[in-house]
Amino acid sequence: MNDVLIRALLRLPTPYTPVWLMRQAGRYLPEYRATRARAGSFLALAKTPELACEVTLQPLDRYPLLDAAILFSDILTVPDAMGLGLYFADGEGPRFARTVLSEADVAALAVPDMASDLGYVMEAVSLIRTTLKGRVPLIGFSGSPWTLACYMVEGGGSEDFRKVKTLLYKRPDLMLRLLQRNAEAVAAYLNAQIEAGAQAVMIFDTWGGVLPDGLFQQFSLAPMRWVHDHLLRERTEQGQRSPVPSIVFTKGGGLWLEELASTGCDALGVDWTVNLGAARARVGSRVALQGNLDPMALMADPGQVQGQALRVLESFGLPQDGFAHVFNLGHGISQHTPPESVEALLETVRTYSTRQREQAQLAVMHNSGAP
Amino acid sequence: MNDVLIRALLRLPTPYTPVWLMRQAGRYLPEYRATRARAGSFLALAKTPELACEVTLQPLDRYPLLDAAILFSDILTVPDAMGLGLYFADGEGPRFARTVLSEADVAALAVPDMASDLGYVMEAVSLIRTTLKGRVPLIGFSGSPWTLACYMVEGGGSEDFRKVKTLLYKRPDLMLRLLQRNAEAVAAYLNAQIEAGAQAVMIFDTWGGVLPDGLFQQFSLAPMRWVHDHLLRERTEQGQRSPVPSIVFTKGGGLWLEELASTGCDALGVDWTVNLGAARARVGSRVALQGNLDPMALMADPGQVQGQALRVLESFGLPQDGFAHVFNLGHGISQHTPPESVEALLETVRTYSTRQREQAQLAVMHNSGAP
Repeated sequence: MNDVLIRALLRLPTPYTPVWLMRQAGRYLPEYRATRARAGSFLALAKTPELACEVTLQPLDRYPLLDAAILFSDILTVPDAMGLGLYFADGEGPRFARTVLSEADVAALAVPDMASDLGYVMEAVSLIRTTLKGRVPLIGFSGSPWTLACYMVEGGGSEDFRKVKTLLYKRPDLMLRLLQRNAEAVAAYLNAQIEAGAQAVMIFDTWGGVLPDGLFQQFSLAPMRWVHDHLLRERTEQGQRSPVPSIVFTKGGGLWLEELASTGCDALGVDWTVNLGAARARVGSRVALQGNLDPMALMADPGQVQGQALRVLESFGLPQDGFAHVFNLGHGISQHTPPESVEALLETVRTYSTRQREQAQLAVMHNSGAP
Repeated sequence: MNDVLIRALLRLPTPYTPVWLMRQAGRYLPEYRATRARAGSFLALAKTPELACEVTLQPLDRYPLLDAAILFSDILTVPDAMGLGLYFADGEGPRFARTVLSEADVAALAVPDMASDLGYVMEAVSLIRTTLKGRVPLIGFSGSPWTLACYMVEGGGSEDFRKVKTLLYKRPDLMLRLLQRNAEAVAAYLNAQIEAGAQAVMIFDTWGGVLPDGLFQQFSLAPMRWVHDHLLRERTEQGQRSPVPSIVFTKGGGLWLEELASTGCDALGVDWTVNLGAARARVGSRVALQGNLDPMALMADPGQVQGQALRVLESFGLPQDGFAHVFNLGHGISQHTPPESVEALLETVRTYSTRQREQAQLAVMHNSGAP
């Protein structure tokens, strides 16, 4: 198996910098659009294990240099399974039929049963693993407790997060109860994915960055730490035990990296506002760093994509002595991305990062007087 | 004159922490909505000096504890004066009739003539000063060169800034030419406001935070430094010379505070993700800090607003030895804000910050053995 990603997440030496892309199975690929059309709707695609498996593997077939698969699913499967009724309005983002606003709404929320309510996700995980045949590791994922709460209270996306923040400021006790329920559901959800075969997990804290300093720590970071305290950190497969590394990604969380590194995760995703070298100096070798090319850099010509990718690689510097970098974007890939940009990106990362390590090794040999 | 704001921006001691609110003249006030209805449209309101003056003063009449007036105007007056044709579609944000995409579009942009193209803004500034009669200082403002470029290229607001970033990545040379033209226009615009009577100026870099580290420095920070290099730093009124402090606010720019402090500004606006104590330790006493309450905290009950305001004041700590804090929100006030929340906020800031200084003085006297 290509275990470069897992090794990097565990801060072990790798022959090159592994790379995968958030939302790599997505609308920028014609083959994805074809499967999506066959499925009829985004939700049908996400809820049919065979189709979810199919689109999960599409980018790997097109781009042999990708070092990971990520489960194709929606971030809102958990609140949907809690009974909120997820749907997609035409041309708009996700919506919930029922929102969570009152004491009674929170009390009514139960941690979903993973087998009966979210079995389709676990079937997809297991099918993807079988189909992958060990080519690359499979990453499972969930939204963070706070990010799920944003959608559950707002009933969909939001510009100012007024409803969820009003609840937070007016009823912090109730918000904490909601977050605790979400944390339990997220931990159970990720653990079920691990048991179904996920070899790494990622928590998307997409809206952590809308919280003020101080409240972020209480309302997003603390529930993510709770999840980590209850996360399976190993899985057993064919009698063999393997660690299951976790990644936490708080978009807009660049000011809180030290605290995020203390959640118990193995790696931190960072957006493009973060300088990877500065981030590395701040968190040390406690966690690997994942990121952080601006997805819009892929709108440029292949030669320019190469230049921007090099900027990111150079900002991290040489991955050694427990410092590890997983190349990724700083956010999901745009549906408008030309597929050839991804090609240029992946080749640049592989070529440059291989050469970077070789040159460092040559320098060591030279310094130690070897011929 | 109440010069507490100006003193704080210049890092001089003040008897309490001055406070004003971004977008303090706005839709959350019934009196604003009445004037807006009389004007017929937002643009008519912004372009009629008497009405712009009227709404600028409304929050000061309602809230005597405010320490500044800020010119009521739109952030896009400059590109409008460059000939792009600003308009507001019903219930939507600002739009431009013409956008800037090509070499020819950029070449056609001229720095507007301040008297003939933007005279209505200067008239409003001068009228507000006359009407204020020195109650509080008047802050003038402009969008940053990069933020204006975002609207000029996108033709309005954007979620992913795809057009402006595509131009940046594909034609960095052309983008820099556009930014240079904007920087010249912004400097001329702010200088004209200063000559018309503005006693401080603020640059709103609303979209600086969407740029990656490295490119932010080149495409947003450098043009703001250029503006500062060409900014009038003093004004003469009735034979008296006074300094004109400047404030730079990059939303989402918390990772770049040290660099922002080097633009030549006197104060940095910061959003609510920033811890003021940590920011103060990073930038030292080179600049004052302005901010940073989450505007959504004002959705809570008055007692809770008080608690959140105290959190912000305490995070800054005692303003002394050249460290200064101007209390503000971390973004414009929401139209949904209950006006009594603002009352509670202003009283808390004045009362707590006055007591804070008195207690510190008592402690000094006590330590020095005074009775």
